Amino acid sequence: MNQLCLKKSRGKVMEILKSIKEEIVNLDYYKAGKISEAKARRKIKLSSNENLLGSSNLAIKGIKKFLSRKLNIYPDSKMTELKKALVNFFKKHNFDIKIENILFGDGSGEVINIIFSIFLGEDSCLILPEKSFILYYIHARSKGAKIIEAQRKNFEIDIDKIIEVLNKTKGKKVIIFSNPDNPTSTFIKKGIIKEFLSKIDPSIPVIVDEAYIHFAGLENSVIDLIKDFPNLIVIQTFSKAYGLAGLRVGYGIMNEKICEQAEKIRLPFNLGSLQQVGAIFALKDEKFLKKTIDYVSEGKNYLRKEFNKMGIKFLEPFANFFFVDFGEKTVDLINFLNSVGISIRHLVDFGYPENFVRITIGLPRHNKLLVSKLREFYGK
Amino acid sequence: MNQLCLKKSRGKVMEILKSIKEEIVNLDYYKAGKISEAKARRKIKLSSNENLLGSSNLAIKGIKKFLSRKLNIYPDSKMTELKKALVNFFKKHNFDIKIENILFGDGSGEVINIIFSIFLGEDSCLILPEKSFILYYIHARSKGAKIIEAQRKNFEIDIDKIIEVLNKTKGKKVIIFSNPDNPTSTFIKKGIIKEFLSKIDPSIPVIVDEAYIHFAGLENSVIDLIKDFPNLIVIQTFSKAYGLAGLRVGYGIMNEKICEQAEKIRLPFNLGSLQQVGAIFALKDEKFLKKTIDYVSEGKNYLRKEFNKMGIKFLEPFANFFFVDFGEKTVDLINFLNSVGISIRHLVDFGYPENFVRITIGLPRHNKLLVSKLREFYGK
Repeated sequence: MNQLCLKKSRGKVMEILKSIKEEIVNLDYYKAGKISEAKARRKIKLSSNENLLGSSNLAIKGIKKFLSRKLNIYPDSKMTELKKALVNFFKKHNFDIKIENILFGDGSGEVINIIFSIFLGEDSCLILPEKSFILYYIHARSKGAKIIEAQRKNFEIDIDKIIEVLNKTKGKKVIIFSNPDNPTSTFIKKGIIKEFLSKIDPSIPVIVDEAYIHFAGLENSVIDLIKDFPNLIVIQTFSKAYGLAGLRVGYGIMNEKICEQAEKIRLPFNLGSLQQVGAIFALKDEKFLKKTIDYVSEGKNYLRKEFNKMGIKFLEPFANFFFVDFGEKTVDLINFLNSVGISIRHLVDFGYPENFVRITIGLPRHNKLLVSKLREFYGK
Repeated sequence: MNQLCLKKSRGKVMEILKSIKEEIVNLDYYKAGKISEAKARRKIKLSSNENLLGSSNLAIKGIKKFLSRKLNIYPDSKMTELKKALVNFFKKHNFDIKIENILFGDGSGEVINIIFSIFLGEDSCLILPEKSFILYYIHARSKGAKIIEAQRKNFEIDIDKIIEVLNKTKGKKVIIFSNPDNPTSTFIKKGIIKEFLSKIDPSIPVIVDEAYIHFAGLENSVIDLIKDFPNLIVIQTFSKAYGLAGLRVGYGIMNEKICEQAEKIRLPFNLGSLQQVGAIFALKDEKFLKKTIDYVSEGKNYLRKEFNKMGIKFLEPFANFFFVDFGEKTVDLINFLNSVGISIRHLVDFGYPENFVRITIGLPRHNKLLVSKLREFYGK
């Protein structure tokens, strides 16, 4: 009797599963490969490109202050204060944007997902450099879109190959790449992106994910190209340089007409009150931003030197991480580092050969420990 | 020359707009009609069904404590601790669910959006009672789905009419309704929902949005029907009874196989660390939950009595708000209440005739002020 019931119930489960859209059933999960927050506190986590300095104290203080006013009221769905703060921040950094150009999201991931939702359907293609950030694939596939990868050149993004793929591909297209690039840490200069934009059909959206732009110099952002190229959408985040990965705040800067469409499908309360207030105060804390950029720059110089001494191959980094080729012994090395409490990111998940890893640049003490453990492993 | 440049740029804007999906261009905005957070502190806001008691102190304390550990680390993408806390909470309330049955979202809105995304496409229909919660329409239309409304009976949800519409409609279908219903505050008993589920095709997802269930008695939730009806999906939230509208935490309880598919398109870090820790502590604070339910119940009795005295027509409320018919003078009354610092929700936005409003039940002092202002308006 019980077995019969179970069977009947299973039959019903199958019925409802038939109603799930095929593109969802065929979709893979995002494998975060991250260690848990609890474990992270015991370990040195060099696997997720977080800010190892911590978070802006101003942001933390701002959130604490807000908490005394309670959380029972809905957040400001228009995020006016936060948008004003961002406009002012960019003004100080010589970028002229308006409130109408800003789309905020629950991390940059939500912004990308919203932009994909307004452009990508079953009849469209996402074009991106091969072996890019995994979430681009998942979000595009969930809209039923096809993925077309453009070949890289010595691991770097090859703009010419993207144009080649564009010309070969018919129908609706969207382009995305990260700059600095995740996971290679390489960087494309503004002039090259401008040239690219002037060459392609202005009806094709081009998304440039600048999650790591602060480490390459905010002045190198392509935000200012939006005026001339309304098909350009720039994505940035508070998760990296601002040290607020746990808060979930990202944003896109784009033509106001695109923004207007995107706003329609944004969840009206996608940023909570604490997220809004945290980001507002983080924008005021330029000292923290500078300290962050400085420790990353210092760590970059130190690790570059030490890697060279040990003959470790890497690409010149423009973000807060190194793209490293550890050669044949990579898996052993990752296991060894794990055993001594250092986690790094194996890039097989991204589709790279087994010898590639991504290592977040840490504080001086983290970098020193990493180097001493590498020396120990290599017997040097 | 300048004008020429402008024209050229405008031309480009038009090009990119052509690439935006038609269902997005045709979509309406969600008109929150809320007053800003700053204004809300000066006014008595009876327009958004928030918890006027505030938020759980335990939740606030939990968040403050977490803040000392900084926000630079990514949140736990699997939300294991939070899911465990919810399973335990439901166990205490005699509901047997597993971690695998839970989908968390940035407010219940994100959960509904994710569920719609896995079931609804351009070839499908959302069936719902006429004049339901506005966001159901927006999220469904953004997927390209058609909307079919089932007639109500004296404003209440009419299950027979939903079945009638179901039988008439071909192709893929999804059903959604809220219970207690927003904005009518009416309630459908579990037995009727069970009968409904047993009558319909088990391949049709039925979403029951229980955002206000705590006010109707948590024991009346249909969560326990999921075992027998794997096509049932129940949505709940921390925004109402828990007083955490500003934090943005909602969840869906559903068959583990549906949950598995939904998890694929959930943004891996859709709940930040503060959201997770706030919800965990809120679940522990059953005293706050009881106090909330008590003040709403008390206010309901008081307002029912006073409305009756004044001859004001309303439906018997099961949520923390009244659905009221103020008759011909409604617009004047809303303006008068606004002028004395009380905001209520006009239901023309929901598609109801001009005489209908929704009023959140407040604390005794709010309710008394409301009643005295109503008396003043009516000259009684």
